[in-house]
Formats: sequence, structure tokens, C-alpha cells
Amino acid sequence: MADIKILTEADLRRLVTLDLDAIDCVEQAFAALASGDVVMPPILSMAIAPFNGEVDVKTAFVPGIDSFAIKVSPGFFDNPKIGLPSTSGLMVLFSARTGMLEALLLDNGYLTDVRTAAAGAVAARHLARADASTACILGAGAQGKLQLKALSLVRPIESATIWARDPDKAASAAVEMTAELEIEVTAASELPGAVSAADVVVTTTPAAQPILQAEWLRPGQHVTAMGSDQDHKNELEPACFSKADLYVPDRLSQTRLLGELRSAIEAGIVASDAEFAELGMIVAGKGEGRSSDKAITIADLTGTGIQDTAIATFASRRALAANAGTDFSN
Amino acid sequence: MADIKILTEADLRRLVTLDLDAIDCVEQAFAALASGDVVMPPILSMAIAPFNGEVDVKTAFVPGIDSFAIKVSPGFFDNPKIGLPSTSGLMVLFSARTGMLEALLLDNGYLTDVRTAAAGAVAARHLARADASTACILGAGAQGKLQLKALSLVRPIESATIWARDPDKAASAAVEMTAELEIEVTAASELPGAVSAADVVVTTTPAAQPILQAEWLRPGQHVTAMGSDQDHKNELEPACFSKADLYVPDRLSQTRLLGELRSAIEAGIVASDAEFAELGMIVAGKGEGRSSDKAITIADLTGTGIQDTAIATFASRRALAANAGTDFSN
Repeated sequence: MADIKILTEADLRRLVTLDLDAIDCVEQAFAALASGDVVMPPILSMAIAPFNGEVDVKTAFVPGIDSFAIKVSPGFFDNPKIGLPSTSGLMVLFSARTGMLEALLLDNGYLTDVRTAAAGAVAARHLARADASTACILGAGAQGKLQLKALSLVRPIESATIWARDPDKAASAAVEMTAELEIEVTAASELPGAVSAADVVVTTTPAAQPILQAEWLRPGQHVTAMGSDQDHKNELEPACFSKADLYVPDRLSQTRLLGELRSAIEAGIVASDAEFAELGMIVAGKGEGRSSDKAITIADLTGTGIQDTAIATFASRRALAANAGTDFSN
Repeated sequence: MADIKILTEADLRRLVTLDLDAIDCVEQAFAALASGDVVMPPILSMAIAPFNGEVDVKTAFVPGIDSFAIKVSPGFFDNPKIGLPSTSGLMVLFSARTGMLEALLLDNGYLTDVRTAAAGAVAARHLARADASTACILGAGAQGKLQLKALSLVRPIESATIWARDPDKAASAAVEMTAELEIEVTAASELPGAVSAADVVVTTTPAAQPILQAEWLRPGQHVTAMGSDQDHKNELEPACFSKADLYVPDRLSQTRLLGELRSAIEAGIVASDAEFAELGMIVAGKGEGRSSDKAITIADLTGTGIQDTAIATFASRRALAANAGTDFSN
């Protein structure tokens, strides 16, 4: 009989919050990715067209982390019509030494939210100016709010604007984040000015057509685009690639297919075989980061299995320390 | 809060046995595969070389089945040294309509054993002569024994031989199967004669070099090769493909890469783009099966996600009917 730890979404929300520990844990996984010893297979993706659904499976083995996660993320976009969330899923943690099942993390996507925001913080920590004090967030969903929080943990953010297609959602997110972060957060009335005024811009939408125009960018800015994780999504006008001094993918083989880079290649602005140092290379000091206070930098985050393995192991360790969750014998 | 059903290995062993119901359920999934509406992505496979391990993830959406399984199969081949089984894993069942988590089937590979043996029965049902009464099983492991049992459920098997590299294992498996199936099962003293004497031959080994020679085959025989599921495995001498009248893959795109077909292509005996009707086509009446009592037929089974979705849904339905397992709220 083997003992398996089961952690509910409520357990996980208690145990893991977006904080510097979570950010550091994800940052270390990115550094490991640069070592070359990480094993990260391509994403398994299955569309269930009759029900407007899809499911993605991600995983990675990270040397130095004793477990690996298999993360299953279903997205069923008609669910809201029947009162269910579009996204759900779980992470399953296995021993990297024996393959034995260690823990079931029934997070309904919560840990993905945290590790995704944490990657945004890692990108900002290594690419945004150290004195970045203003932010503009495109998208007022859960991830938009988390990205702003993540940014505030690594840069001295004093004020922020939030833009959304639905102004009411932007206004309500602004009120919520003002209270949570105790900084001035307002809804952006017009996008070009809001983008131009920010030191850091984070795009968090499922846009299929660019929502951020190159002409709005100005020297010294850092942009993190994290909305595109599918081959039909695109948030940045491809011309942003010409205007930027540095482009940093989370995983180059993946951003070529699923990230902002895909559209830039399609537009003929970037060569399909162009090489770029990945975020992990910069974290590990093996790649060049921001070159000056005037440089424009872009991070393209599509989401990687190393983040899942890192956050799931982190959550499991916290559960063990807190004696949280349910022990189940099999 | 959502209710999730958790089924332990013990629950699943009580609920699901290799019987005609399980075989029919897997057969229907193969028939669905022939309809063209099944979605079955390539296997996600990750090697963890430092610990002599690997993990495979399979899935499939089968129209008409309301759930889909994500099956995770770790194999860590140094585990026996520390008293653990090499293979383990679980199946996770989701609603195909909403993607919501329905059940955790902590089977440690048991359901894989059953659905794999069931596929052997499906192959024999459609390819072996109706009067096949003798069998020869290569391999004395759990799957060798299950394949013999599966065969006995669909053909009037009266006697069988079991061959294994370790004669003691073959002898002990023969004693066990004689008692279980109440037919005469003996250990094969020499392989060529045992193969030649059987109406149905099933190879169930992890061999990396052929163990079954073409010259041993005789008219009227059916061979199911189910050991090869990786690109370094090979049980049948490629010349078997020249001698056979019919070759049937479970999934052609997969057997080209992982099955016996891979070695036959490599040996130059079969063209790399040669087309073959899949088992599901034959089950569905859309492909030609055995042409005569003299024909030699070969089934090449690498294992498919449709079988996992079928058996996991089957187990879940049985658990519901029996009110078995543990209900867990998340």
C-alpha cells in the first residue's frame, strides 16, 4: 500500500500564494532549463471540437527536483453557459526516482495561475528597468490581476492602469487591485496613452488579432506578452519585434509555434530559424539581458512544463511541512 | 464543490476483470477509431535517463463515450532492486462535455493490463481461425498470462504452451494457467516446435531483437505481437512480413514508429509509406480480415489511447453501479 497525498483547491489556496518564494521557485526552474539537462517534451494537445473543448498536458523533468508533475489543463469554452468555469484540471506529482504516484493536486488551474504570474515576475526581474514604477496591464481577468501583483513583488510599482475590452471589468479590477496592493490603480480610458506611459506593459488576453501597436512603445519599456499559448493567438503587432532591442522567449521551440514569435515569423519580420536566448539563459547568466535604460525588451511567455513541476513540488513540500491535505492509501 | 470518485487498485481489481464485457468495450472503441471522428494525439513520452525511467501519457476522445481518460504510465526499470514494481501509474477521467474531473483511477497499471489483453482478444476474434484450438505464448509475465486468458474467451482453446527465457517462470506460469483456465498448459521446451504447433501465437516480451523466426510460421496461423511499444523493441523477424498474408496494425501511424512494422521498414521489407487497414477498420467491416483458413495473419499492437478511454469509462460505470470507491469533494 502506498500513501498518496490529496490536496484540494482550498488546501492549495491556503498553502501557496503568489509570493517571493513562489517566484524564486519558478525562477530556479528556468535557470535549470538553461543547464540543458531538463527534459521537457512537446505539449500533448487534444481538441474536442464537438464540445468546443481542448485539453493540454505538460510535463518536465528538472534535475535537482525530486518529483515531476504531469499537468492536465482542460478548457471547455461553452462551460460558462451552464455555470461552470471554462478551465479546470489538476497536477499529478510523481517521484522522479521511481515514478511512483506521490500527490494529486486538485487545483482546478489555480497553481497554473500562480506559476504563470510567477514567470511574469521572473521576466520583469531580469528584463524591466530596476526603477520601473508604472505598469499597464491589458486584460482584467484573474491573470491580469495576478501579473500586476507579481510585478509589484519584484519592481517598485507605484501606480498602474488596467485596460480591458469591457470598461466595467477594467474599473472593477482597478478598485480591487488598489485595495489589495495599496497603490493607485486606475482603469485605462484609452489604450495608446496608457501603454506609452507605463514602464512595464503586460498583455494577458486571449486576443487573436494584435491589441498592442508598435508605435505606442517608447525607450526603456519592458513588455511581457503572456496571452498567446495557441497557434491562433496574437497580442503584439509584429512590428513590435522591429522596435524592440531584445526579444526573450520562455521556450524558443514553443514560441515559434504558439507565441508572439509565430506571428512575427508569419509577417516576415523575424526569420523562422532566428535564435534568441531563452529566459532561463538570462536567469542563469548565460544570455544577455537588458542592455541599457533605453532598451525596449519583450518577453514572450507560452507556459512551460518546468513551471508546473516546480510549483507542484513547491506545493507538495508546503503541504508536508504543514501536515495539510488528505492522506490516501492505495 | 465538485464530487470526484477515487478508485483504488483494489477497488478496480474487484470491479473490472478480463471478461467478454471488457473485450466488447475495447472492441467498440476500435470500431469508433475507424469512423474517423476519434481524436487521438501522439503519445507524450518523457525519458528520465538518470533514474532509468520513462513516462508515457496517452489519451483519446471517442465520440459516443461521454468521458475521456488521460493515462499516465511511468516505467522505472531499477525499481525492482528496491522492492518496487517497474510500472505503475493511474488513469484520470474527465467529462468529454465539460472537461471537469470525474474520477481518479489509481490502478497502478492494472487497467492497462486488462485493456491490452482485451485488444489481443479483439485481434484474435477478427483474425484467428474460428476453430483455433492451440496457442503458444511467448513471455511468462502478467501480460503473457492475460493474453492466454483473453484468447480463451474468444476462441475454443484446448491447449497452450508458454515459452520464456527463464524456463522456471514458464513452468510456473503453465501450472497457474492450467488451474485457472482448466485446459492443458505446458512450458515449451523448444521454441520453434511450440510456435509451429500453435494456431495462435502471442508475443508479449520486451525483446529488442527478434525472438520469433519467419520459418517457424505455417499456413492458417495468427500471430499477435504486443510486446513492442518503443522504437528499440522488436519481437518478429522482419521476414515474417513477407510470409504473412495480412498485417494489421492497431494504429498505423504508431506501429510505423514503435511497432513491429518499424523493424520491417528498417529491414527494407515493407515500404515506409505502405498502407494497411487498421484493426478498427476490420472490426467495423471497412477492411479485409482473414481471407482463408490457410492465410497467415499478424496483428501489431502498440497500445492506443482509445483503449484507455474505453476501459476507464467502463470501470467508472461499474463503480457507479456498484456504489464502489470513495467520493471526494473538491
